[in-house]
Amino acid sequence: MNNDKKISVAVIKRLPRYYRYLGDLLDNGITRISSNDLSKRMNVTASQIRQDLNKFGCFGQQGYGYNVELLYEEIKKILGLNKTYNLIIIGGGNLGQALVNYSNFARRGFNFIAIFDRNPKLIGLTVSGIEILDVAELKSFLENNRVDIGVLALPKDNAKQVAPILVENGIKGIWNFSHVDLDVPDNVVVENVHLTDSLMQISYAINGYVE
Amino acid sequence: MNNDKKISVAVIKRLPRYYRYLGDLLDNGITRISSNDLSKRMNVTASQIRQDLNKFGCFGQQGYGYNVELLYEEIKKILGLNKTYNLIIIGGGNLGQALVNYSNFARRGFNFIAIFDRNPKLIGLTVSGIEILDVAELKSFLENNRVDIGVLALPKDNAKQVAPILVENGIKGIWNFSHVDLDVPDNVVVENVHLTDSLMQISYAINGYVE
Repeated sequence: MNNDKKISVAVIKRLPRYYRYLGDLLDNGITRISSNDLSKRMNVTASQIRQDLNKFGCFGQQGYGYNVELLYEEIKKILGLNKTYNLIIIGGGNLGQALVNYSNFARRGFNFIAIFDRNPKLIGLTVSGIEILDVAELKSFLENNRVDIGVLALPKDNAKQVAPILVENGIKGIWNFSHVDLDVPDNVVVENVHLTDSLMQISYAINGYVE
Repeated sequence: MNNDKKISVAVIKRLPRYYRYLGDLLDNGITRISSNDLSKRMNVTASQIRQDLNKFGCFGQQGYGYNVELLYEEIKKILGLNKTYNLIIIGGGNLGQALVNYSNFARRGFNFIAIFDRNPKLIGLTVSGIEILDVAELKSFLENNRVDIGVLALPKDNAKQVAPILVENGIKGIWNFSHVDLDVPDNVVVENVHLTDSLMQISYAINGYVE
């Protein structure tokens, strides 16, 4: 496929879901699928599927459909999942520990290599074999190790202080669980997971203001 | 305001962010703000702000701007945050425990009242004062307690089995951390937090396929 081709954010947001469904198909030994069948499983229209997949050069064959494995591998590459990533997490509390313990990330190539906290009670503890380090060591750690993604799981004021340290030391991706919007240069990607905001979507909806 | 007025999903998705910024303003003693000032803080255009806020009947006054507290209270009501919610979580592992331990939810009126798991090693343990119950007791618990939101933090195959039990017992909101799409009736809201999908947005972006 053509790497210069621009893919819209909306399509990219849907790619992990395609990837998941195609993985399930492979697990079940299904090697080809029509856009109509995929449509029924995914509960999106077949024309949406054809449009999305065409955008990154995956064309189904008339009367055959898509080759599941080829499509899976293509999406894997587009999502960058043919590589591995080193992650560090700042914030070794409950959420930070839960993320480090979650084995699904490693299966996809996302490997936690360090945890940082400033709480003396946490520093020195080990989570899934990874020691919690003093956040004072963050800068020197970044200088001496390849780190691809920084995960922020700490109170918002602290997150604002830590983000610039990540950026100044070359981190290109920030996974932000802290409840604050970060101000970073354009070449740094921030993916926010604002859990409280997500809960509010539910409280809104079950209260009757429904679109 | 008019409760029958339809608000688009896109606007609703932005409301928690308005709510957060307005809360910060109140914390800092700021009682009124123009759409221009809010625009600079939130990094969205002033016209977007005016459009969004007008949609739910909050009109700024020319030369005065918005009354921060009134606007905050209005959004609070729209988001249903003037009420409290009883939550149960199915899946008492690391993620489930982290969610129960996260005090920010209770501050917003989201109270965990029970945790369920099927693992004998977890059943009987206490997390933030809440005992982990046997998932076999889920149905009778739902029959005997008011539960507003069910949180799924368990492997995907188990999530598919548990979701119908929640729905059949009147749960109207499901917060789904399990990596699967749930098939529920239209009157049940599912808010998905697919953490692996979120990470894939970062690996995609730092690999150079940028829009």
